[in-house]
Amino acid sequence: MQTYVMNGAYWSVPGHSVYYDWPRAYGYSEVQAQATQPLTFVLVHGSWADASFWNGVAMELRRMGHTVYVPEFPGHGSDLNPNVTHGMISKAVADYIIANNLRDIILVGHSFGGSVVQKAAELVPDRIRRLVFMDGFVVADGQSVADQFPASMRQGFEQLRKMSKDDTIMLPFETFRDTFVNVADLATAQKLYSEIRPEPAKPLFEKLDLKKFFSLNVPKSYLFLTEDAAVPQAEGFGWHPHMSSRLGQFRLIKSPGDHMTFFRTDPALMAHKLYEASRD
Amino acid sequence: MQTYVMNGAYWSVPGHSVYYDWPRAYGYSEVQAQATQPLTFVLVHGSWADASFWNGVAMELRRMGHTVYVPEFPGHGSDLNPNVTHGMISKAVADYIIANNLRDIILVGHSFGGSVVQKAAELVPDRIRRLVFMDGFVVADGQSVADQFPASMRQGFEQLRKMSKDDTIMLPFETFRDTFVNVADLATAQKLYSEIRPEPAKPLFEKLDLKKFFSLNVPKSYLFLTEDAAVPQAEGFGWHPHMSSRLGQFRLIKSPGDHMTFFRTDPALMAHKLYEASRD
Amino acid sequence: MQTYVMNGAYWSVPGHSVYYDWPRAYGYSEVQAQATQPLTFVLVHGSWADASFWNGVAMELRRMGHTVYVPEFPGHGSDLNPNVTHGMISKAVADYIIANNLRDIILVGHSFGGSVVQKAAELVPDRIRRLVFMDGFVVADGQSVADQFPASMRQGFEQLRKMSKDDTIMLPFETFRDTFVNVADLATAQKLYSEIRPEPAKPLFEKLDLKKFFSLNVPKSYLFLTEDAAVPQAEGFGWHPHMSSRLGQFRLIKSPGDHMTFFRTDPALMAHKLYEASRD
Repeated sequence: MQTYVMNGAYWSVPGHSVYYDWPRAYGYSEVQAQATQPLTFVLVHGSWADASFWNGVAMELRRMGHTVYVPEFPGHGSDLNPNVTHGMISKAVADYIIANNLRDIILVGHSFGGSVVQKAAELVPDRIRRLVFMDGFVVADGQSVADQFPASMRQGFEQLRKMSKDDTIMLPFETFRDTFVNVADLATAQKLYSEIRPEPAKPLFEKLDLKKFFSLNVPKSYLFLTEDAAVPQAEGFGWHPHMSSRLGQFRLIKSPGDHMTFFRTDPALMAHKLYEASRD
Repeated sequence: MQTYVMNGAYWSVPGHSVYYDWPRAYGYSEVQAQATQPLTFVLVHGSWADASFWNGVAMELRRMGHTVYVPEFPGHGSDLNPNVTHGMISKAVADYIIANNLRDIILVGHSFGGSVVQKAAELVPDRIRRLVFMDGFVVADGQSVADQFPASMRQGFEQLRKMSKDDTIMLPFETFRDTFVNVADLATAQKLYSEIRPEPAKPLFEKLDLKKFFSLNVPKSYLFLTEDAAVPQAEGFGWHPHMSSRLGQFRLIKSPGDHMTFFRTDPALMAHKLYEASRD
Repeated sequence: MQTYVMNGAYWSVPGHSVYYDWPRAYGYSEVQAQATQPLTFVLVHGSWADASFWNGVAMELRRMGHTVYVPEFPGHGSDLNPNVTHGMISKAVADYIIANNLRDIILVGHSFGGSVVQKAAELVPDRIRRLVFMDGFVVADGQSVADQFPASMRQGFEQLRKMSKDDTIMLPFETFRDTFVNVADLATAQKLYSEIRPEPAKPLFEKLDLKKFFSLNVPKSYLFLTEDAAVPQAEGFGWHPHMSSRLGQFRLIKSPGDHMTFFRTDPALMAHKLYEASRD
């Protein structure tokens, strides 16, 4: 297969030889201009996932010079007991932060992990340098994660829940493929699907008291992956701006990506964008 | 003109030499990772267009190994009789599919062709593997294509309709240039404009019964070109998420592009994105 | 530092050797295909800025062969008197256009400059070839610039106003960093912040009569920088589509970017996109 050289002429204005650096348009030049600020990340996974979800991104962040911690929820990963509550999960994350004596952390929540980060932040606010929601749920006070979906989808989740023997929800492949890994090829989609386990249902439907969270004075960022339709990009729904705007003032960063694919196929992009969302 | 080499250093993290493959971020790596799945496309054009609209994209899809069919509407292309109805057009597409004995097809609708695909799908649902709306109208049950525009624009279309001698609508150049081919240069815009003919008005204003369409259990995708403002990107209007979300569960793919330009100037991009929207 | 060659294989379809030119997808090929149309730009800055805000972009536009004028507001730059009104500012811009005998101009408004361009256009409509809003305020008739913010933010501005001794507003660094230069690195953010001065408050809160503006028949474009959250990207708020759609028919161009960073770190991108928004 032949190798082509990217022709700089494409990037220039005729007769003026202005070389155009495309990557700069995505903020990559800054990586060059300034040394990386070493950060301490605590990466909180979402539903239908466990700590291994972050493997690629954690490796890239460590390569960049950061320190990375990845807690795992009760009822997930090696813990097969699905009888967990949202409170148990968020307390486990806060306990992990305390047990490891972590301070000045970047607390990152992906997907359902966003709602976990909201509640964990109420427990250990003084240990957090910045909260980063990476297509993470920002639940309004008194609502549940399930409340963030249109009624027809919420009813679909409830039916899946009733069909299970242990109060869990398993996504049908077609749903996972088209709404969680929409930009992936089929082989990648199948591989990612083969790794997920039924998700404990209860935490998704619990109403959350988030009054303290919305009173916290902690810097916040929202990293939005523009093809992510795991929560529908519909009027009155969606990651951004519907849920993100509940944060009040926050730093907005965008990246190409759907809900899960690039965490596996392009962890370097995810890590770079996470750094842009997290640095001072 | 000098040739520059894209400097990989830009894509690396200082001191770590992580080469960053930008194209991966747009899903191109998958083309490498997995052989193309050969598909049978039926490409349905929109208003102010005929089958030739798809020439470039069809060529690219065939190069990729796909089979491509391109039906043409009555009252369009070589058929100069503007006295057509929406029912005649959608039946012609369904008849074309049957006459060519096509099965397991990817039925793609661009622009007005989206509404045609909705009605044609009601006629031949069992022959469709996936429906793909490529900035195509997804009309709500009981509405018309014209109903998808703000009142002031719909009235503008109605005035243009009355001005014609044969119940057609011709777009003024300024409207076409700024809202159909906004990212094109002037020469490209003029060339594309020179090729369009007045559009039969009646099918745009007919109210459509779409109850059966919204009950069909066929996989669906929406390919959204992010600069497409042929239908205004306004609150309560637009291709995505306003019309796309009527599909319920669907696969979302995005690409740079306006309503028509890249079909002519960058058919390879359009074909790649169409494949991402269409593959299993 | 090692130099890498961008591998064209990534852009090809296996077995077909179709070289894929990514830049084309962003409209750069047109710069090649057609000679640049020389335009006369009048660049109108925003709040917390003065004429020097445009230095990089003006230099790039001139390199491209354009003529560039950059008026400065009273109460800004070298004029330290904050006691100005919106009418004084827009009249100063119109007077500048008349004094320099400028005709057939591309009148560009960034940020607050959008509202200035609205009012200046009422004064010199016959001298304008096209209006370009570059994440510029499009204020509805009877509203103020401050009315474009959610109530909580507007109240924050009012508090900052009261805290000042001379009826100005100074942005706290944290607000500037996360909402004006969100994609910048910290050093760039600090440098840009060090250059801003308190902004005269009165023009931001004045209600504007814009009936004439909304009756003007002048071609209009909106250039939207997709990470710009200086006005929140929230439902019912934001540059695009909330404010942009008030223009009625307009040409939409998008670019990566936040509110201010790339004007400094990537003026070539900003200039190219401005040209796409401005050409015939």
